Amino acid sequence: MTKIDHLGIAVESIAGARSFYEALGLHVAHEETVEHEQVRTAMIPVGNSRIELLEPLQEDSAVGRFLKKRGAGLHHVALHVSDIEAVLAELKTRGARLISDKVQVGAGGHLYFFVHPSSAGGVLLEICQDAPDAPQEPGA
Amino acid sequence: MTKIDHLGIAVESIAGARSFYEALGLHVAHEETVEHEQVRTAMIPVGNSRIELLEPLQEDSAVGRFLKKRGAGLHHVALHVSDIEAVLAELKTRGARLISDKVQVGAGGHLYFFVHPSSAGGVLLEICQDAPDAPQEPGA
Repeated sequence: MTKIDHLGIAVESIAGARSFYEALGLHVAHEETVEHEQVRTAMIPVGNSRIELLEPLQEDSAVGRFLKKRGAGLHHVALHVSDIEAVLAELKTRGARLISDKVQVGAGGHLYFFVHPSSAGGVLLEICQDAPDAPQEPGA
Repeated sequence: MTKIDHLGIAVESIAGARSFYEALGLHVAHEETVEHEQVRTAMIPVGNSRIELLEPLQEDSAVGRFLKKRGAGLHHVALHVSDIEAVLAELKTRGARLISDKVQVGAGGHLYFFVHPSSAGGVLLEICQDAPDAPQEPGA
């Protein structure tokens, strides 16, 4: 099972950006502050994917530096996979440049790692998988 | 019905870029040359969305100029909607900056228009809909 999990979009202000998506009939389902990344996030479901608005809490954060350098815009693309360790191993074999060389565990228990844009066609790419104890589809 | 239809990614070479996606277990399903945009495209299905690799056929094309200015990376995000005229009207009412002020008809008959990044959080956004005579879901 592979899909586009979400698109991370850096914005100056979630309050300012969300009205555009509301004009498209899309709505923020969930907001959250991620302290260790100094970012406020707003998740907007789009079909079985999501748009994740990213508003920095301080200038000297990953998203804050991105905004200062590039302005608002797409920050990363996240692909959802079913066997993240196999994908990591395959990319290492191929010599892809990774931001971290191990799978990380996110706030909700989901697994992820990032591939450097230089190895992913200029796109900062997140590979992610649901938390190992997340509810499975019947029969999965 | 709204979903992420595709992500357009500008690349120097489809041949060079596709191997990375193959490492993720993704494959090019279809390649096409779009003469009037002077671009070669390769569609990679990802769940019910697609990644569209865009290779310019000449430097003086929209994608060629993008590559020269920014390098490889995300070129546009396309959202699929069910009533494109209603979305266009709503965006006009809200004063969004549009690349064209009418719905365009694409090669396969699909409908689309583009919203300028200045009105869409820094992202060049395509709004699209299937061709009016495309097969519908049963009961739709």
